Amino acid sequence: GIAPAVHAQAAVRWRMASSFPKSLPTIYGSAEKFSDTVKALSGGKFEVSVHAAGDLVPAFGVVDALQQNTLEMAQTASYYFTGKDPIFAFGCAVPFGLTARHMDAWMEHGNGRKYMDAFFAQFNITSMSAGNTGTQMGGWYRKEIKTAADLKGLKMRMGGGLFGEAMAKLGVVAQNMPAGEVYQALEKGTLDATEFVGPFDDERLGFQKVAPFYYYPGWWEGGAELEFFINKKAFEALSAENKAIIRAAGAVAARDMTAKYDAQNPAALKRLVASGTKLKPFSKELMDAGYKASMEVFAAHEAKSPEFKKIHQDMRAFQRDQVLWSKFSEWRYDGYIGGVKL
Amino acid sequence: GIAPAVHAQAAVRWRMASSFPKSLPTIYGSAEKFSDTVKALSGGKFEVSVHAAGDLVPAFGVVDALQQNTLEMAQTASYYFTGKDPIFAFGCAVPFGLTARHMDAWMEHGNGRKYMDAFFAQFNITSMSAGNTGTQMGGWYRKEIKTAADLKGLKMRMGGGLFGEAMAKLGVVAQNMPAGEVYQALEKGTLDATEFVGPFDDERLGFQKVAPFYYYPGWWEGGAELEFFINKKAFEALSAENKAIIRAAGAVAARDMTAKYDAQNPAALKRLVASGTKLKPFSKELMDAGYKASMEVFAAHEAKSPEFKKIHQDMRAFQRDQVLWSKFSEWRYDGYIGGVKL
Repeated sequence: GIAPAVHAQAAVRWRMASSFPKSLPTIYGSAEKFSDTVKALSGGKFEVSVHAAGDLVPAFGVVDALQQNTLEMAQTASYYFTGKDPIFAFGCAVPFGLTARHMDAWMEHGNGRKYMDAFFAQFNITSMSAGNTGTQMGGWYRKEIKTAADLKGLKMRMGGGLFGEAMAKLGVVAQNMPAGEVYQALEKGTLDATEFVGPFDDERLGFQKVAPFYYYPGWWEGGAELEFFINKKAFEALSAENKAIIRAAGAVAARDMTAKYDAQNPAALKRLVASGTKLKPFSKELMDAGYKASMEVFAAHEAKSPEFKKIHQDMRAFQRDQVLWSKFSEWRYDGYIGGVKL
Repeated sequence: GIAPAVHAQAAVRWRMASSFPKSLPTIYGSAEKFSDTVKALSGGKFEVSVHAAGDLVPAFGVVDALQQNTLEMAQTASYYFTGKDPIFAFGCAVPFGLTARHMDAWMEHGNGRKYMDAFFAQFNITSMSAGNTGTQMGGWYRKEIKTAADLKGLKMRMGGGLFGEAMAKLGVVAQNMPAGEVYQALEKGTLDATEFVGPFDDERLGFQKVAPFYYYPGWWEGGAELEFFINKKAFEALSAENKAIIRAAGAVAARDMTAKYDAQNPAALKRLVASGTKLKPFSKELMDAGYKASMEVFAAHEAKSPEFKKIHQDMRAFQRDQVLWSKFSEWRYDGYIGGVKL
């Protein structure tokens, strides 16, 4: 006969609540990659189960759950929590902020992670990247947006962060609704526009059928980092080996997600255009209007919070250096590569 | 009394030979980060000792050592071995090739790693990234290089890969010499130029004193990936847990190295300029001459090797898609960010 299977108990079992649904194979896939890697690295002695948005806690309830010590990990976008404190935005993306590589450099070898983790500590959180989406698209619009005047009164569904505050200054009216209702609202015209991520994620939502104008670039998300938020108390109670496992599995998941987005977005963009999507660049006037509104938003938060100001100014100084160096290296190279027949 | 310390023996001990010296804290630091991570992830049961170029085997002897099964791992630049087969170049960088993010995407979610590991198998190697330098500089020159005619007869020290073949077509005379002799040769004028990496690595070599013209961009290294080469037989003999540890430690080291380069290069560039370095862009004529020569090199290798052609064409198709998507996302965003006062 066959011997009964003997399954060793995992010595440590954690739960991760994602703020995202399983229908996003890029972002949710990063959480699954993390979980698989923790299990493999520990020989099955450490398991982190992944739960889709709403399964354990609501999508936007993950910070509360970590703070109340009822959850070990979350996968989320830090800027969802700017209602608690606008500083949360710097963990994910701010208008005209860092691109993916610049963000990694600021986080890992600048002051980024150090400052953010000092801030997150009050919420019982230590953080790490879950991957970067890269520069996002500027969203789907039922009508062309030619001038800043076209934004006034526009009913738009938007993600979190400081971007909404900048858009409000431009006259955009934020509409909150579950993702599942957006398509119908655009079709009926009770919604004029929505922004989401980029071609690969957006394609499956079918927006091109009801809001065919697809603008670029998403100036509010030049490089949005998704985060793993870790219960700080639970993390500190881990063995040195398990701490290293968490950090390394984060690096595996983060590298994988960015590469997956980059690999999948081009074909999705081509399919979208083939099915009727009209690609449009935001005009210089619109970019300038967004920039001016955004800088007013930053100035207002800086005036209220020295900590916000410290982190924002540090990020901008880092960004200025990155821009300087990029102009002599990658951007110059990109400019040539973009102009030749490969 | 104090109890005698008991040190558990590491269950697995490997040796990694680097092709680089300890004096490069970015690249060599990636090998050390890898080693530290393996030890931490295994709770000390798996150790990979790191050895600088020449300590165990010569810098360019690492592939032979892996093939002869006398070494478990190496850290190197794959393009050093184009003398064995030009296909080695695709593991690191080829002229007008992929940038760092595009390379990661091709390697991890395109056909890159799959094709390269199928090729490397004949050398008893399985590979993974050890990090990417980003777009490199175009090197140090004693005199200005204004036209393609200025390259004719230029005595230049160059790294490996297909770039040397393209430069030879332009009349550049390759000079092989140990890194330690380059400064003096430039000073004496027996060498006219040298290329290395970028500001952070180059600064410590002091070239600005003897070859002050620092050109950009390095069209032969738009995003050079350093590699960990792993002894395939030794890897396959590892437990599933130790295999996962090797892969995850690679991801940790690779993410760290790229971020470290990006974080350190801007300040080094500013210091170099402050100490007399004259930054110069390669002219359109020079870029076009490099491009034309490079495409001739690729065509010649394609005519000789169907496998070279398969990998090159796959990489170019992937690159065309990445360029397309980048134009609607990051490059558009970069163009705006580069033009505003941050």
